[in-house]
Amino acid sequence: MSGPIGVFDSGVGGLTVLRALVEHFPTQDFIYLGDTARLPYGAKSPETILKYTEQNLKFLDKMNVQAFVIACNSASSQFHEKTFNSKPVYTVIEPGAISAINKTENQRIGLIATRATIRSRAYQNHLHQFAREKGLLNLKVFEQATPLLVPLAEEGWTDDPITNLICYRYLQPLLLNEIDVLIMGCTHYPLLKSSLQKVCGSRLELVDSSDALVSILKKDISDNKIIVSGTGELELHMTDLSEHLQNLSQNILQKDVHFKFAELDFSTK
Amino acid sequence: MSGPIGVFDSGVGGLTVLRALVEHFPTQDFIYLGDTARLPYGAKSPETILKYTEQNLKFLDKMNVQAFVIACNSASSQFHEKTFNSKPVYTVIEPGAISAINKTENQRIGLIATRATIRSRAYQNHLHQFAREKGLLNLKVFEQATPLLVPLAEEGWTDDPITNLICYRYLQPLLLNEIDVLIMGCTHYPLLKSSLQKVCGSRLELVDSSDALVSILKKDISDNKIIVSGTGELELHMTDLSEHLQNLSQNILQKDVHFKFAELDFSTK
Repeated sequence: MSGPIGVFDSGVGGLTVLRALVEHFPTQDFIYLGDTARLPYGAKSPETILKYTEQNLKFLDKMNVQAFVIACNSASSQFHEKTFNSKPVYTVIEPGAISAINKTENQRIGLIATRATIRSRAYQNHLHQFAREKGLLNLKVFEQATPLLVPLAEEGWTDDPITNLICYRYLQPLLLNEIDVLIMGCTHYPLLKSSLQKVCGSRLELVDSSDALVSILKKDISDNKIIVSGTGELELHMTDLSEHLQNLSQNILQKDVHFKFAELDFSTK
Repeated sequence: MSGPIGVFDSGVGGLTVLRALVEHFPTQDFIYLGDTARLPYGAKSPETILKYTEQNLKFLDKMNVQAFVIACNSASSQFHEKTFNSKPVYTVIEPGAISAINKTENQRIGLIATRATIRSRAYQNHLHQFAREKGLLNLKVFEQATPLLVPLAEEGWTDDPITNLICYRYLQPLLLNEIDVLIMGCTHYPLLKSSLQKVCGSRLELVDSSDALVSILKKDISDNKIIVSGTGELELHMTDLSEHLQNLSQNILQKDVHFKFAELDFSTK
């Protein structure tokens, strides 16, 4: 199968994933959908998140993508299928969990994420499964919902003493539990990496799902499950357009971007 | 006309308005709708906010309310009619603006609100209109978008040194401009009143739209435009139910509450 790869997120956080994909697969075409009219997903119920996820996949499917990337942890945590309309679906949770298991030395892993992702236990389940497969029998996962980090990233306070303070308050309980790896369980959080690393110290490893996702895609490309195709085109859709989010998007992607307005059928019935 | 009064907000912030209404009109029936599936409105575009507002009014209208209260500043800033289906619509912006004009002595008013409310210039326009009517010719309005305050209130960090710091950063430019009145232009902000008052000092007056709205309703009741009716029943609907928001709602209303799930037609077409 060939064609563009469809990527979606509740908003602009998933652009950190898209940025990594574009960097590693520069000739591949991508179609991005940001569901900015209904963001954020992280405080919403499992049923609502799953409904929105399926609507977004359907939107991308109509554009003849060859595969889907759910670049949103809250959405990934609710979608348990490997395919949608017979095409492969990649989430950000499995790659993050595998990467954390490969990195930990003391089997004590920290997880920061939205309330919805924490509550879903998706990371917990995957981490324990991969640990068992690797023979790690003493795995402990310490988790913390960090709802203020997304608005801080969106406000642009990415290297800021107030952000350091908030990160310190959220992370202190995890650090006291002597974690040696911290999973950034939301695609916005890499935007705050500098604050997080300051609070954690340089010896603690931060896991960014994008890197792990790229490795998995590389493998599927060499296995011919995905055919790199296109001319490096980037098509960006948002369900709501605001100047602030467009500026933020340009900062994340570090290039001029033009968004199309995506009219979804938002019926909840 | 008699019947319940319908109140809506993008989420739970409007419960601060409902709380004031219930306190002053204890025998009146109220129906509340929180559009939690699509919150927050404050970062969304004018067109999207207006569309959501009309869908919410329609939902309440079907429940035979006698009047509507738009207990959300971002929604109020986009809705310019005085009625919906021939029934009166009360917003929170006019009452807040009138109250600020009545309180200021030096004609220097500060406004904090979401990006959408600031951009709409709804407060600016009403403030200048009421100032002219009162013969105040030197009015100056100093505004500041404060997007982190809603997530801070929802995180429950309502009396907290970090919240004080953030309020200080947002308010400092307004205070340097020697405002003597500050409009809390979002129904979440009264939850942070203690931090805001600390930063502003006790001599600066904080305007809470709820108080002003109550005065206007009292007048319309004595003019028989609204007939107080019911037995003090409170019916609460949310478009998405999450435990966190339900707990927060109970804290705001200070009583056990039960939410019904509201299935809206969310089509954007």
